[in-house]
Amino acid sequence: MEQRLNIITLGVRDLNESIQFYENLLGWQRMDWESDNIAFFKLNGLILSLFPADDLAKDAGVASDGHGFKKFTLAYNARSEKEVDDIMQTLERKNVTIVKQPENVFWGGYSGYFADPDDNLWEVAYNPFLQLDDQGSVK
Amino acid sequence: MEQRLNIITLGVRDLNESIQFYENLLGWQRMDWESDNIAFFKLNGLILSLFPADDLAKDAGVASDGHGFKKFTLAYNARSEKEVDDIMQTLERKNVTIVKQPENVFWGGYSGYFADPDDNLWEVAYNPFLQLDDQGSVK
Repeated sequence: MEQRLNIITLGVRDLNESIQFYENLLGWQRMDWESDNIAFFKLNGLILSLFPADDLAKDAGVASDGHGFKKFTLAYNARSEKEVDDIMQTLERKNVTIVKQPENVFWGGYSGYFADPDDNLWEVAYNPFLQLDDQGSVK
Repeated sequence: MEQRLNIITLGVRDLNESIQFYENLLGWQRMDWESDNIAFFKLNGLILSLFPADDLAKDAGVASDGHGFKKFTLAYNARSEKEVDDIMQTLERKNVTIVKQPENVFWGGYSGYFADPDDNLWEVAYNPFLQLDDQGSVK
């Protein structure tokens, strides 16, 4: 098994609300693959997929009950502290839930968190030790 | 905010057990960035990070309670149905929890699921509609 990942699927409560969030608030574009029941966003070499949580549980054959902290986070690495601030301030003005305002963190970076409509946590961070290529992928 | 993702962090119960899983059972290599409290695996343009769940909750400033279905899945896209079978059979022989044996699925692909020690669900799929580049990233 190669050391890679192709799709992350978020199991959502309300597909349309989640699509609105990623399209209108983050400003991302969907792939033209959509059906009525799933949405795909092509990121840097992988896909973010939004799919109703009950359907996702059914696809894997597991119980769909779950609540509280989901025990995973997603991180977007910006190219500067200023970019972190700009992104977080823009999202705050759009009434996105800011979970943690950006601050200097113990590992030497600068980071804040926002939440999507299903409380999936996105960290927006500047990490001076992480190299990004022109497309923003980790080198 | 560009349309990209740099890190996915899994909040784990037992860091050493999770490291063993990803290193020894999936056969993946850690980055040499490790501290005693976090592990990083460089994937295709992004990083998979393993971090104790309580510390992850604390970092985001949220409550750490959570149980049941985590409402997200990760997918590895293989290049053929045979590669899906080979991976899943290899993992099964290593006593990895197989959540769903590979089967043909309604959208035209072939897919199964396994679980890591924290019940994070990994789908291993062949999707004839998805183009992968030489590194296995989504084109």
